[in-house]
Amino acid sequence: MDQLIEITFEALLDTKLSIPLYQQLHSKLREAILKGVLPAGNRLPATRAMARRHNISRNTVLTAYEQLIAEGYLETQTGAGTFVCATLPDSLIMTTSPQPVPTQHKKEHTKSKDHLTPGSPAINQFPKSVWARLVSRAWRNANNSLLTHDDPQGYAPLRVAIAKYLHASRGVVATADQVLIVAGLQQGLKLIIDGLMEKPSTVMLEEPGYPGMYKTARMSQAKIIPVPIDENGATVPNQHDHNKHPSNLLVISPSRQYPLGLTMPISRRLELLAWAQETNSLILEDDYDSEFRYAGKPLTALQGIDGGDRVIYGGSFSKSVFPALRLGYLIMPPALVEPITRYRSAVDSFPSIMPQLALTSFIEEGHFARHIRQLHKTHAHRQALFCSAFNKHLSHWFDLTYADTGLHLMAVAKNDYQFDDITMAKHAKHCGLAASPLSITYHSTKSKHGLLFGFANIEEQKIDSALQQFSGYMPKETHE
Amino acid sequence: MDQLIEITFEALLDTKLSIPLYQQLHSKLREAILKGVLPAGNRLPATRAMARRHNISRNTVLTAYEQLIAEGYLETQTGAGTFVCATLPDSLIMTTSPQPVPTQHKKEHTKSKDHLTPGSPAINQFPKSVWARLVSRAWRNANNSLLTHDDPQGYAPLRVAIAKYLHASRGVVATADQVLIVAGLQQGLKLIIDGLMEKPSTVMLEEPGYPGMYKTARMSQAKIIPVPIDENGATVPNQHDHNKHPSNLLVISPSRQYPLGLTMPISRRLELLAWAQETNSLILEDDYDSEFRYAGKPLTALQGIDGGDRVIYGGSFSKSVFPALRLGYLIMPPALVEPITRYRSAVDSFPSIMPQLALTSFIEEGHFARHIRQLHKTHAHRQALFCSAFNKHLSHWFDLTYADTGLHLMAVAKNDYQFDDITMAKHAKHCGLAASPLSITYHSTKSKHGLLFGFANIEEQKIDSALQQFSGYMPKETHE
Repeated sequence: MDQLIEITFEALLDTKLSIPLYQQLHSKLREAILKGVLPAGNRLPATRAMARRHNISRNTVLTAYEQLIAEGYLETQTGAGTFVCATLPDSLIMTTSPQPVPTQHKKEHTKSKDHLTPGSPAINQFPKSVWARLVSRAWRNANNSLLTHDDPQGYAPLRVAIAKYLHASRGVVATADQVLIVAGLQQGLKLIIDGLMEKPSTVMLEEPGYPGMYKTARMSQAKIIPVPIDENGATVPNQHDHNKHPSNLLVISPSRQYPLGLTMPISRRLELLAWAQETNSLILEDDYDSEFRYAGKPLTALQGIDGGDRVIYGGSFSKSVFPALRLGYLIMPPALVEPITRYRSAVDSFPSIMPQLALTSFIEEGHFARHIRQLHKTHAHRQALFCSAFNKHLSHWFDLTYADTGLHLMAVAKNDYQFDDITMAKHAKHCGLAASPLSITYHSTKSKHGLLFGFANIEEQKIDSALQQFSGYMPKETHE
Repeated sequence: MDQLIEITFEALLDTKLSIPLYQQLHSKLREAILKGVLPAGNRLPATRAMARRHNISRNTVLTAYEQLIAEGYLETQTGAGTFVCATLPDSLIMTTSPQPVPTQHKKEHTKSKDHLTPGSPAINQFPKSVWARLVSRAWRNANNSLLTHDDPQGYAPLRVAIAKYLHASRGVVATADQVLIVAGLQQGLKLIIDGLMEKPSTVMLEEPGYPGMYKTARMSQAKIIPVPIDENGATVPNQHDHNKHPSNLLVISPSRQYPLGLTMPISRRLELLAWAQETNSLILEDDYDSEFRYAGKPLTALQGIDGGDRVIYGGSFSKSVFPALRLGYLIMPPALVEPITRYRSAVDSFPSIMPQLALTSFIEEGHFARHIRQLHKTHAHRQALFCSAFNKHLSHWFDLTYADTGLHLMAVAKNDYQFDDITMAKHAKHCGLAASPLSITYHSTKSKHGLLFGFANIEEQKIDSALQQFSGYMPKETHE
């Protein structure tokens, strides 16, 4: 056991890297657990011993251990030390015969089959009774003026709560006056194109990139230009724009590129900001699942690096609260608040008070933060189980990319097994897996084939059997 | 007293008119009460005597009396007969010194000043505690699949409830599959223009007409053509359309033209339907406040006359529930359901479950119907008070048009007193009146000046003093 840790360590701790030591330690231990190098039930060295042996501070070790405990990889047993979770991963993955499902449950499952999208959080963890209580209290105490509340930017207390939250969690620099409440980022993109941009306008989208954004952009009259992704994320476009009002919009996901999962380094961020300044272009920063970062701190949002002039920051509560809520936000540069609000008011009046009121209480009273923490634990645990089971059953056909963030993992089909991933996604859904084909994220270049698997909204005891069942659909001739 | 009724009667009951006798009787009695010809506290003839004397059936008299009782004009005193309501109109209008307002209340009033729009229902009657209870129960009992509910047409049980309700109340012929839930009619118009019509498209709007629709149409790329209003409402356009897909959309308010208040007779309705068929055009029937009809039955919706091919019927719950709810609907011709839903899905995904879930319970459990009945009573009562007080203080400067429907009354400035109605609307708001200038409903022809007054959302005891205060702003030279 101690030896295993030693081996892992040799290749790990690099004091010259900009990544903090505790984070390096965390990642490597996590990987060792996921790969089975550190099997379930094994005891880790005491923090003091670990620190001494590797000449690092005990705090560094403590921080890494604590994070892994919070994420469900490790557990402490009083007086006995720190162990790799006993329920993780083998004992659960071994469950081969799924429990019989009661009828009521079965119906629900059938109903929600359509919702097997990789972007779902752990839906069954949402505190519905808390929500019911908050909503009820908000309406019992509601002032009559709420019934006619009609701010086209959105409910002011919610905007305050969002500005505060994003500042703390993402380094977004904005007042509540810069927040525009929208139903989601697709509505946000449409409002930006239709309401702010000089016509004819050009929308530059990541290639590969999120198909929802392509769909929305295609429905506008804008010209679409794909932006290639390199190892640093979106590359700098060569479009120029010399109109008085911006006619170029670049849509990017720097925190975690969809679908490839790359995090954009600060150098590329600065290059893109410089390009936007020079060419009078706008950037929409799509921070679609930054709430779910399981290791380390995320890089500050592009918006927080920019002076606030060129970057519109967008996010939603679809993943962190629930998808049917339909609430998201744009953080606008100050000069663009008035024109986009005026446009919104003309085409969509103002957003409904109902979801806004409920969400405001949910955030203000600390339930949101608590819920996110709880999801982190569940998601990290499920991701670990998923990776183990996936590698056990499917590594012959796919390269799975680990992720420190988000709700899905990318599995690229190995060269020899290029197959129709649209059909494969259907098979996966049939097995109860949330899967989406990789090829549909390519819009103008040759598609890679593979699958994006949601790991967050699948019950622990179903993961292994679902993946095993799915492996039955793999090409037979190569399956020993 | 009996003689007064007799005089009123001579000019009234016309058996050759298509209007039912009970309705003629109802209107005339109502007018007599509003004009003070039948003063408060006076006893009406017994139904049997009334019927015999005028050679009509006793049922006719009973129906008319009952409607006036329901609307708050008459009241019965057991054993003594039917009387003009004692609290209506004089005793209340006489209140010259308004009650001192507690601070809390004052604050609320100040806050809601921005919401003094003529389209508001009696906001303080909304049963917030019932709503709180329904919402809480719905969430406590919610199936997890509600959290990911994502139907781009809207929540199916709500669509069922709406189809049923519109069939019963408006003669709309549609299944739940034809219902598209929208945030409001402006969003509906935008979806129709952007998602259904061949480009370049033409939108024909009533002149004068609702400014919100103009605003939305202007924001689309459509060409706008004004449609003149004659005494039968919107006239038949001379636009033709020979595209494969419709490129002409006519937007009309046949139930009650906004702002003039005309109801379109069946002859004109048939002409417009024929025109739409011949020219491959679409009609959007805006039934913006048909829930509030105080006398008689409304004409069947245009949608119910049409085979369902050419007419999109639209309405909202902004007035019948509360404006901040932001829920409305389009009833689509069957062939257009799929394309508009596909378009909506691309640009706006799907509507939030929260307002939909609450409203579904509100309708299904009978609260909606009960609330509408309660509002009818309050609104009719407030309209009566408003008319009396208005005529007392302002008839020198305005011609007030009575209305059997809706939430507002039109007061046209008399020829000698043409004034800037935008300034006047501000003065009126300053007096606590919900007023909107008539001139802003004209977009391409010479404006009439006047004011549209909301009567539904003003507390009874404030009506007289507010109108008296407002009369202080009238031109001094002519005020004796």
